[in-house]
Amino acid sequence: MKQFVLGLAAALLMTAAHAEPTATGDLGLVIERATGSVLLVDQSDRAALARIEGLGDLSHASLVYSPDERFAFVFGRDGGLTKVDVVTRQIAKRVVQAGNAIGGAISDDGTLVAVSNYEPGGVRVFDADTLDLVADIPTGSKTIGLVDAPGRRFVFTMWDTGETWIADFARGTDPQITKITDMGKNPYDALITANGRTYITGLFGQDGLTALDLWDETPEPIRVLPGYGRGQQEMPVYKMPHLEGWAHTGAEFVLPAVGHHQVLWVDADTLTETGRTQTYGQPVFAMARPDGRQVWVNFAHPLNDTIQVIDTVSKQVIHEFKPGPAVLHMEFTPRGHEVWISVRDANTVMVYDTHSFEKLREIPADSPSGIFFTARAHRTGL
Amino acid sequence: MKQFVLGLAAALLMTAAHAEPTATGDLGLVIERATGSVLLVDQSDRAALARIEGLGDLSHASLVYSPDERFAFVFGRDGGLTKVDVVTRQIAKRVVQAGNAIGGAISDDGTLVAVSNYEPGGVRVFDADTLDLVADIPTGSKTIGLVDAPGRRFVFTMWDTGETWIADFARGTDPQITKITDMGKNPYDALITANGRTYITGLFGQDGLTALDLWDETPEPIRVLPGYGRGQQEMPVYKMPHLEGWAHTGAEFVLPAVGHHQVLWVDADTLTETGRTQTYGQPVFAMARPDGRQVWVNFAHPLNDTIQVIDTVSKQVIHEFKPGPAVLHMEFTPRGHEVWISVRDANTVMVYDTHSFEKLREIPADSPSGIFFTARAHRTGL
Repeated sequence: MKQFVLGLAAALLMTAAHAEPTATGDLGLVIERATGSVLLVDQSDRAALARIEGLGDLSHASLVYSPDERFAFVFGRDGGLTKVDVVTRQIAKRVVQAGNAIGGAISDDGTLVAVSNYEPGGVRVFDADTLDLVADIPTGSKTIGLVDAPGRRFVFTMWDTGETWIADFARGTDPQITKITDMGKNPYDALITANGRTYITGLFGQDGLTALDLWDETPEPIRVLPGYGRGQQEMPVYKMPHLEGWAHTGAEFVLPAVGHHQVLWVDADTLTETGRTQTYGQPVFAMARPDGRQVWVNFAHPLNDTIQVIDTVSKQVIHEFKPGPAVLHMEFTPRGHEVWISVRDANTVMVYDTHSFEKLREIPADSPSGIFFTARAHRTGL
Repeated sequence: MKQFVLGLAAALLMTAAHAEPTATGDLGLVIERATGSVLLVDQSDRAALARIEGLGDLSHASLVYSPDERFAFVFGRDGGLTKVDVVTRQIAKRVVQAGNAIGGAISDDGTLVAVSNYEPGGVRVFDADTLDLVADIPTGSKTIGLVDAPGRRFVFTMWDTGETWIADFARGTDPQITKITDMGKNPYDALITANGRTYITGLFGQDGLTALDLWDETPEPIRVLPGYGRGQQEMPVYKMPHLEGWAHTGAEFVLPAVGHHQVLWVDADTLTETGRTQTYGQPVFAMARPDGRQVWVNFAHPLNDTIQVIDTVSKQVIHEFKPGPAVLHMEFTPRGHEVWISVRDANTVMVYDTHSFEKLREIPADSPSGIFFTARAHRTGL
């Protein structure tokens, strides 16, 4: 009986926040950048469920999920690290861990959350349960391109020094650090492939990109597309493309060109160019539908009202449409049947069928930017 | 106030079953074949949470998950289709839909559940909410190798006639059916690649395998490894390997050889053989760790107490151990840091670290066989 009363008390307590039984596999959060809030959404119902406020400066914010898809760790530009509980729909914990931050990652076992900082430069690592600081890794540089890799590792790169470091937490919270020098001049972003093997940095200060094979015992910088860049033609660059937006279609990567109205196709094995597709504007994100058959591309200002869909077999644009002003981000449902699109200046998230291209729903949101579905919890490098 | 009272009533109702707020991203179900029950497990806690009973004959059972990771659809050998609610930890619905069944699949949008039947032959398709029959597709043959493909499609193959059918439900519940003949003699199982592009059948009645490119407008049978099989050397076959157990390591598939103590490496692009690795016994499952760096192999009776781990770069066995009698199945955590192993005759599920190979936990279970983590909800063809 005592157990029942306790159970009842717990149930009553829950009603204060949210008491329905909640499965979390088809949920997501949309960053509302202007208001420092996130919108909890349900993919199956194509609906907003709740707004959670008080997350600070969310311009350029991103987030990762705990393995149980219950908690989101939101990385704000102001150095705020906020742990959001998508079951009770409340902020579980919040710390301001630096003055100016840019993204983060969660270890493959879900126990460590790392944040990449501009001010002060470096990476700070937190206990995912408590948000207590467990490791501080100063780098003497603005730190970018932070990703997780298998085996409780984090990989990140220094804008000022052109070094990439691998911090290996396999043995606890005192990391073993491997430093790779000569990655190139002013790396500005990086990605890791979905299998956690290849880490690729984009360079601001020179043409080309630099890759590392993390399966190598002693990874060495590999130059990629050395003749490619914004250098020679001196195109104006409205917005550096997000490297996280690289599409991996199986045999090839699709890379948004810097400063050109093109996407580039790169052989995933040899990292050599295999083709180019002319696009409507300067691409920002080039994202593959999960089955790899289509790549959806959005564009930099002032052409950011448009999306083009490219067939990955023919490499041709097969569909073009204008969702509305300021298309900032796209997120596919995990099996790719639908895509959600943030249209910031329409204050709307739009949901489309990826086979018929039919618009299925408009969901009001306050200046929406990044959309993050909980299925990301199960993937490396997101 | 009325809403609060209703909310309270709902909360009280829940305590009858299970009232804790539940995130479902790190849960799983283990088939207990002898007792017709499933064991609900938690990956993060490495623990069993509850046993759900009354699922009928679960020999050779498998299951798929709804997109929200709340419901499992369990396909029993006796034709039973049971919908299990992992949040309330109860059977939500159960129908006996045929006399003898072999596996099933869920459409990419989560609305249709299909079951493949021996008796009577054919495929039956059910509404995922209600389990009402929405389409009956008689095939005049034992039907095997049923998988989902993008765009509300199911693909399945006929043992007796050697045909593969694609049932396309894009336009509702009245499928458009494409029939491909001449897939080979007595196909016994099939798989679809993770991107939903390539469907491959194993053949019992002749050497080799047969593939289909589902991205082709009119898919034609493609012969794979025509010189490979059990035919010429007439090896005794203790157990046909599961094709679902094919490992895809990025550039290559790893195929458990039929009747030989080998796994075969096949180029994923050209479907030609690239190598062989000698193994301890006749492989049953050859499963890639999610990052593709390792392949874990178990073996047919009487060598089924052992697991070998193969490095996919060197193609060499790097680790071998004996978890115990009758190792039936393995399931990796979605990001691959741990693996769960069913050891049937030890009545135990064992959890190992895939980097250190250390055993982390033993969990009692009643004759455990298949282990299915909820992250499968987000993947094609599982």
